[in-house]
Amino acid sequence: MWGGMANIRLTIEYDGTNYHGWQSQSNAVSVQETVEKAIEILVPAEKCKLIACSRTDFGVHAFAQVANFITGSDIPPERFAPALNRILPEDIAIKHSERVPDDFHSRYDATGKKYRYLICNSKYRSALLRHRACHVSHPLDIEKMRRAASYFVGRHDFSAFQATGGSIRDTRKIIYSCTIEADGDIIAIEVDGGGFLYNMVRIMAGTLIDVGKGKCAADVIPDIILSRNRHKAGKTAPAQGLYLVEIHYEK
Amino acid sequence: MWGGMANIRLTIEYDGTNYHGWQSQSNAVSVQETVEKAIEILVPAEKCKLIACSRTDFGVHAFAQVANFITGSDIPPERFAPALNRILPEDIAIKHSERVPDDFHSRYDATGKKYRYLICNSKYRSALLRHRACHVSHPLDIEKMRRAASYFVGRHDFSAFQATGGSIRDTRKIIYSCTIEADGDIIAIEVDGGGFLYNMVRIMAGTLIDVGKGKCAADVIPDIILSRNRHKAGKTAPAQGLYLVEIHYEK
Repeated sequence: MWGGMANIRLTIEYDGTNYHGWQSQSNAVSVQETVEKAIEILVPAEKCKLIACSRTDFGVHAFAQVANFITGSDIPPERFAPALNRILPEDIAIKHSERVPDDFHSRYDATGKKYRYLICNSKYRSALLRHRACHVSHPLDIEKMRRAASYFVGRHDFSAFQATGGSIRDTRKIIYSCTIEADGDIIAIEVDGGGFLYNMVRIMAGTLIDVGKGKCAADVIPDIILSRNRHKAGKTAPAQGLYLVEIHYEK
Repeated sequence: MWGGMANIRLTIEYDGTNYHGWQSQSNAVSVQETVEKAIEILVPAEKCKLIACSRTDFGVHAFAQVANFITGSDIPPERFAPALNRILPEDIAIKHSERVPDDFHSRYDATGKKYRYLICNSKYRSALLRHRACHVSHPLDIEKMRRAASYFVGRHDFSAFQATGGSIRDTRKIIYSCTIEADGDIIAIEVDGGGFLYNMVRIMAGTLIDVGKGKCAADVIPDIILSRNRHKAGKTAPAQGLYLVEIHYEK
């Protein structure tokens, strides 16, 4: 009856506001289970197990999360995207679906990721960005933040930028770029790297915000990195400003 | 007890998703009554009557609506903004408050307005922009849209771009600029003009979308304007893509 098993890769956009993160948890709705249930409506004969690259936290958004699942369904791979979009709630959208080699694994095969952290730097809070950016009322010095951000680039032990609860043993990670763009009140920190520790981007953002406020100098970053001490870095910036932008795979 | 009456001007940002527009209506929550109630919490001795420049429809957003009210309160004018921001729901924010001359009127004194209309031009719907842009899956030709938009500039009788239900007698309006910017999937139509008819920007956007899809030529715009016939123009584009960006006043 089935034409063999196929490994399907999905590219998923979501607004993380109303989900307890990517990963399924008891007593809380996750993006993962919401997408799995939608797939099971399309393919009722199978129990779906989605493997995602990034287990985003509660409130974190994604432009392009990547997840894959194995199915024996004869639905054409590219049809999963439009079919799932009709089933899924409005705050989750499938941007692309395709068949990938059987051994493709969303997490293990990823070679890097790009995150964006949005700050709304205005005197008063923003209504339109309330779940989409971190509000900072103190004027931020973008040039100082840019100088600080440049120190993140390269391969470093980022232990100082890891929240407790992380399960990653190798704390040496490579950052390809860390740039800061400003457009009116909106400041975007973009970080592209080979791998990230738990809450790493949010702690980097929190530290850059401290630099922008003038609470510390831009050149303090190398010392914080060298210290490998979480208490030397800034606070973990709030989840609602973080976006998973892209996941890199070798072609 | 009071130091005389003062006319206070507020600049208001809101996410229109959860409101039945600016104006108070029976059986529906409006932005106007929400802000009026917040002011009455600060100044319980007075009934507040807010006059706004633009009576935005259900679902329309504002970066900078302008409204004014008369009060005998001795709260310093600039303190209304932070005090109201602590009372108001998260989807409404006061960006600025100041005292203005007694005869200032938000609507009658406005000399023009700028609106933005956002389109998400992607194959599948967007999760993050679900209440923030109009989704168009058919690829749009930006250059054709730009050419069409240029015909709106100038003083014209815009009867063809007026929804029924409008109460404006003088249908001749001046448009200072109508520009189109694209950034990835996002297309922004920005219209700056001396005045607007009911649903005028949304009908302009709907017509520009038709041009972008190739349903009609760019040079059809002058004929539509001349026809003064609503049926010649495109559909009214959905409210969730529309933003009131700025209101102009003579200094």
